[in-house]
Amino acid sequence: MDVEIARSRLTSARVGYLATVTAVARAHVVPCCFALDGDTLYSAVDAKPKSTLDLRRVQNIRSNGAVSLLVDHYDDADWSQLWWVRVDGNGRTADNAVERARAIALQSTKYEQYRALPPPGPVLAVDIDRWRTWP
Amino acid sequence: MDVEIARSRLTSARVGYLATVTAVARAHVVPCCFALDGDTLYSAVDAKPKSTLDLRRVQNIRSNGAVSLLVDHYDDADWSQLWWVRVDGNGRTADNAVERARAIALQSTKYEQYRALPPPGPVLAVDIDRWRTWP
Repeated sequence: MDVEIARSRLTSARVGYLATVTAVARAHVVPCCFALDGDTLYSAVDAKPKSTLDLRRVQNIRSNGAVSLLVDHYDDADWSQLWWVRVDGNGRTADNAVERARAIALQSTKYEQYRALPPPGPVLAVDIDRWRTWP
Repeated sequence: MDVEIARSRLTSARVGYLATVTAVARAHVVPCCFALDGDTLYSAVDAKPKSTLDLRRVQNIRSNGAVSLLVDHYDDADWSQLWWVRVDGNGRTADNAVERARAIALQSTKYEQYRALPPPGPVLAVDIDRWRTWP
């Protein structure tokens, strides 16, 4: 897959699958909304109902920065149309106010839901160091 | 989410997102086809083009059995309809011939593509020890 196609597919995907590793080296995966800014990906912890804003994904990244985020296309009727794009990188929380505001603005541009209700929780940032694509 | 609803949603989902952990504790995530059999989930390495049948996911499970598999529903227009179901468990390869045949039969029932071309690669088995659902 051409790198520009990969970037376009990642940019426009509405949902990604964020994998992290717990402090005891177990796998964790959640769907998330996100926005891409160059080689940094942002995913704000939003107002969808959760038990706490201090989520497992945030705890995991504090103890192990390894993050992998996947987007894909599945078509049950035609497997020749399938593809996925995965980015691996280092996760952190965007605690700097300027970066946080920029990340939320990017996500609000992409998702109209965030315009009415900006995400109240931490913003995860992933500094991408590797792209993988299939096929 | 009711446990029977969770089981039904996992059973009928066409694609899952399989997270594993590499030998150096990095996160890895791939989409996969799968079938559920009680509290064991099977995902055969199929004939879709890959660089090798000895995939990273198999290597990872050999060094760290922790597996997390997610299925979800995303609806861009109505976030009140979103849900996900995640199962965590211990991954292994189904090397016993009887279990392997059963796993492939289950996936061939679910995916017509496997009836014409049975999966040639290893069959991953995940013995589920935890269910998580949202909302």
